[in-house]
Amino acid sequence: MENFVFQNRTKIIFGRDSDSEVGAEVKAYADKVLLHYGSSRIKDSGLFSRVSESLKAAGVSFVELGGVEPNPRLSLVKEGITMCRENGIEFILAVGGGSVIDSAKAIAIGVPYEGDVWDFYDGKAAPQKALDVATILTIPAAGSEASPASVITNTDGDLKRGAASELLRPVFSILNPELTFSLPPYQTACGAADILVHVFERYFTNTTNVELTDRLCEAVMKTVIENVTVCLSDPLNYNARAEVMWAGTVAHNDLVGTGRAQDWGSHQIEHEISGIYDVAHGAGLAAVVPAWMKTVYKTNIARFVQFASRVWNVEINFQDQEKTALEGIKRTEQFFSSIGLPVTLGEMDIDDKRLEEMADKCTDGGKGCAGNFVKIDKNGVLEILKTAL
Amino acid sequence: MENFVFQNRTKIIFGRDSDSEVGAEVKAYADKVLLHYGSSRIKDSGLFSRVSESLKAAGVSFVELGGVEPNPRLSLVKEGITMCRENGIEFILAVGGGSVIDSAKAIAIGVPYEGDVWDFYDGKAAPQKALDVATILTIPAAGSEASPASVITNTDGDLKRGAASELLRPVFSILNPELTFSLPPYQTACGAADILVHVFERYFTNTTNVELTDRLCEAVMKTVIENVTVCLSDPLNYNARAEVMWAGTVAHNDLVGTGRAQDWGSHQIEHEISGIYDVAHGAGLAAVVPAWMKTVYKTNIARFVQFASRVWNVEINFQDQEKTALEGIKRTEQFFSSIGLPVTLGEMDIDDKRLEEMADKCTDGGKGCAGNFVKIDKNGVLEILKTAL
Repeated sequence: MENFVFQNRTKIIFGRDSDSEVGAEVKAYADKVLLHYGSSRIKDSGLFSRVSESLKAAGVSFVELGGVEPNPRLSLVKEGITMCRENGIEFILAVGGGSVIDSAKAIAIGVPYEGDVWDFYDGKAAPQKALDVATILTIPAAGSEASPASVITNTDGDLKRGAASELLRPVFSILNPELTFSLPPYQTACGAADILVHVFERYFTNTTNVELTDRLCEAVMKTVIENVTVCLSDPLNYNARAEVMWAGTVAHNDLVGTGRAQDWGSHQIEHEISGIYDVAHGAGLAAVVPAWMKTVYKTNIARFVQFASRVWNVEINFQDQEKTALEGIKRTEQFFSSIGLPVTLGEMDIDDKRLEEMADKCTDGGKGCAGNFVKIDKNGVLEILKTAL
Repeated sequence: MENFVFQNRTKIIFGRDSDSEVGAEVKAYADKVLLHYGSSRIKDSGLFSRVSESLKAAGVSFVELGGVEPNPRLSLVKEGITMCRENGIEFILAVGGGSVIDSAKAIAIGVPYEGDVWDFYDGKAAPQKALDVATILTIPAAGSEASPASVITNTDGDLKRGAASELLRPVFSILNPELTFSLPPYQTACGAADILVHVFERYFTNTTNVELTDRLCEAVMKTVIENVTVCLSDPLNYNARAEVMWAGTVAHNDLVGTGRAQDWGSHQIEHEISGIYDVAHGAGLAAVVPAWMKTVYKTNIARFVQFASRVWNVEINFQDQEKTALEGIKRTEQFFSSIGLPVTLGEMDIDDKRLEEMADKCTDGGKGCAGNFVKIDKNGVLEILKTAL
């Protein structure tokens, strides 16, 4: 086990009707907020009016900024920064999924920063100050509701990049599984893939003696696998929605990665795909991960056997453990497919034209590597992308 | 799943040599602290001098108060309160196990309170203010390093009672598994029992649809069971010590109990035992829990079958599931015995003379009940204590 520091300040308010508490919770921090959201879905569903009433009842006024798109754009972030500055706003309430929350976090670090907020995403600067962010989560997926990370897309150059800072953990996040009842099946599935891969990125490690966190990872994975299937066949099943929603937070609040080297290669590669093609992140991951697994499994067959056995309940073939490892990879791919996700780039209409460009951007022009479980150079990334075709 | 609120502010600094960071961490909060500890063991081991050097190097002065005993006494808490007031101290660094930390927490809520600090423990008042507490943990057991709870013994009346408040979560806790190398086997085993029972108290619930937290609980239990055995046979095994130490925190930082009704009956009963007889809490639990299980398992056989199967790897007897449940209870008892703990009161030289008194105190003179999985009245408590004889 490696040394680590773990702290997560985010207050989770979980359960039925929990969004009705938003006004009182915000009031402890601010009298005026930026209410940030995505599509009109939250207005159609009545959530927007419930939130605004709760804020008003608590004496909190707000300025609103909607329009966050999946793979949230830098341009809207800059609009939000200006809006906060002009209105003297020091608290952002994000109502939506990971894209809305990540956009809110970008605004939060952009407001007190004199330079270009993109500096935080291309590694030129580290956040020193941030506005407080809180969230009402509507899509279990990104884990941003309790994570220190934000991922933003700069359409100048099709770049999708992340920033991270403890300052970016929301001060509170409201998780009401009822808000996910109306999620379309494809978004439910994409979210589950994102949650699972957040655990994969931590699970596939060469650090030894990480038994507790292995088992915590397995707990999250098994729960998501079992329950997302229920969510798809029975979208109004509160308990299945609740299991997936809480699993999505635990997957990415940093607990299950404590004491272990982590990978993040699949995320790096997928960011190049959704940076260019604007596909759903979870769908891109479902295509990349099986290809990544097939490329790397031989470097640590024991870990893939454990994955197959403990997560997918594959009977171990003691005479030929590689077969067990491969069966686990096959089950992963079949599972993604079974919940309606593409498991090839072709299924998302992505051809081989820009693979080289993606491999190049993913490895900093061939100078760097993707991942850590296996450090994958530009040629390796290209191979994975070709396998994923 | 039930609605819940989860937040845990404690910063965990985990790993080899992590105690060397204490000075810098404390300095962010205070220039002068109360250094609270138990026996001279931390002086003999060199820990005390390392801590004092780290504090001095960071420019932090301290007043020391040692002498915390297992089942920490109200009298010493009062001494600490006076000491803090006289020296204008507003930060307490607890170096030790759960008893030292709980004593520090009691001082922390006592200092700003005008009344008798025992008011918080007998339910007459709730803490409104507290000094900050930080810890260097030397015994994985109580989970107090990241919990909101403190348990204190008032020798007037042999009362052992708890107080809880979010104010009592330490601001940081340093967990260096190396500090546990020198723990005697009996203390190692008592600690493991305490950790396991913290999970049992959450695991044995009638709340349905708690799959994620069930699996998180099982992850902690399996890790402790496997690794404490290694710690006993190979006390200098860093990784096994690390697994148990981190499991001890996760067991009791409130995550694994989210969304579920909890029991705490075994703890309530055990507090009456160690309140009178001054036995180690973990040993008392090892005697109470099997008796508790035998008394209650029929009310939810399915849950005991899951426990037997998933935690103890018992093959399920599908024709007679009660046998499986009973096998799980037997394995629990055998496990406690195998690590050197008493599994009867007799083994701790406790006879039947004060059983009635304990049952009476545990149920508020027969007016209340112990536990929640099954609400156990005074006669029920007496039955459990007799079963434990």
